[in-house]
Amino acid sequence: MSVGYPLTLRRLIESLSKIPGIGEKSATRIALFLLSKPEFCETLGDLIKELPYKVRLCKFCRNLSEEEICKICNDDTREAKSLCIVENPVNLFHIENTGIYKGYYFVLHYLLSPKDGIGPKEIEMDKLLSLIRKRGVEEVIFALSPTLGGEATISYILQVLKDYPIKVSRLACGVPMGMDLQFVDPLTLKRALLARELLKEQ
Amino acid sequence: MSVGYPLTLRRLIESLSKIPGIGEKSATRIALFLLSKPEFCETLGDLIKELPYKVRLCKFCRNLSEEEICKICNDDTREAKSLCIVENPVNLFHIENTGIYKGYYFVLHYLLSPKDGIGPKEIEMDKLLSLIRKRGVEEVIFALSPTLGGEATISYILQVLKDYPIKVSRLACGVPMGMDLQFVDPLTLKRALLARELLKEQ
Repeated sequence: MSVGYPLTLRRLIESLSKIPGIGEKSATRIALFLLSKPEFCETLGDLIKELPYKVRLCKFCRNLSEEEICKICNDDTREAKSLCIVENPVNLFHIENTGIYKGYYFVLHYLLSPKDGIGPKEIEMDKLLSLIRKRGVEEVIFALSPTLGGEATISYILQVLKDYPIKVSRLACGVPMGMDLQFVDPLTLKRALLARELLKEQ
Repeated sequence: MSVGYPLTLRRLIESLSKIPGIGEKSATRIALFLLSKPEFCETLGDLIKELPYKVRLCKFCRNLSEEEICKICNDDTREAKSLCIVENPVNLFHIENTGIYKGYYFVLHYLLSPKDGIGPKEIEMDKLLSLIRKRGVEEVIFALSPTLGGEATISYILQVLKDYPIKVSRLACGVPMGMDLQFVDPLTLKRALLARELLKEQ
C-alpha cells in the first residue's frame, strides 16, 4: 500500500506498524498527519527517544518511576502493613484511583505462564520477600485478574508465603456492578453465590 | 487516567493523544509498549524527528518526495499529454496501484471548502497552469472524490481552464463492483443510469 511513498515515510510507516494495534492503514494515516506538523514531530520524537532513559522500575515495588524509589514507596504516610500485588502499572493506577487503598504495592510485570516461558524467576520473588520483610507487612492482597495466569500466580506465591506469619487475601470475585445477571458466566455466578453477602441475620 | 504515571510517560501519552484517531487509552497502551522496547524508541524517535526535513513537496506536481522533483515527474517515459488531478498523495498512489494510468499528476492537497477557509489560493492554480503549459497537456482528468468539496473544486478548476484548448474528464460515477444495488444511494443510481454503458446496439 505504501510502496509509492518516499523512503523516509515508508520506513516510518513500517516502524509504526510494529506497534501492537496499529495496522498499515493507521500507520499511514499517522505518518501523513506527522508530516503536516514539523514542530510536533520534534517534540514527539524527543519524548520517544528519551522515554527508556527517563523511566525505570522502582527499586522497591517495581512500579514505573523517574527516580530510584517511586513516589508511593517514598510516601511514609501510607500503611506499611498492607502490600497489594498487581500485575502491571496500569492496574496499580486503576486501584489508586479508587482512593480506597492506602498501603504499598508490588508490581509483578508478568503472570506465571509456562507456555510463554514465564516462570517463577521472572516474578522476582526475592524482591517481593525482601519488601515484605522491610515493611513488616501483615497483609498481602492479591489484585490480579481472575484468569488462568492470575490464578496460577496466586497459587505459586501463596505456596512461597506459607511459612510467613502474614494474612493473605484477594479481590472478591462476583457480579460486576450494573451487569445484567444473564450475561454473567456460570463460574462467576457460582463464586458470587458461595461468597454471598449477609444482609440480615435470621 | 494517566495521572499516576511518571512525568515523561504522561507527556508522551499526552502527545500521542493529539494524533487524530488515537485516544488516551490507545496512547497509554502505545507508550507502555514503547517503554519495553528501548532500541525501537531510538529508531522510531529518529524517524519522526527527521521526517519533516526529509520529505517535501515535488516542485512540479506537489506529490511527496525526498528530491526536488519526484520520481513520477522525473520519469520521461510517461505520457506527458495526460494530467490527473488528485486530492492527496494517498489517492495518487491508489491510482498508481491500478497500473492503468501512465500520465502525470497534480496534487491539490485541499478541496475547496469556504467554511474551512480553503479558497482558490490554497489550491495553487498557478502551479497547475504552469505544469499544464510545461507538459503540453491535452487532457486533464479529475480523480477527486464525488463529495461536496470535490464537486466544488472541479467546477472551480473547470472555470479556470475554460479558455485552454484541453479536454477535461472525470472518473465515472456509478455502482461500485460487488455492491448490492439496494445499498446504492439514489444519486449514484441516477448517475449510473444516465451514464449507462451500451452493450449491444439495437
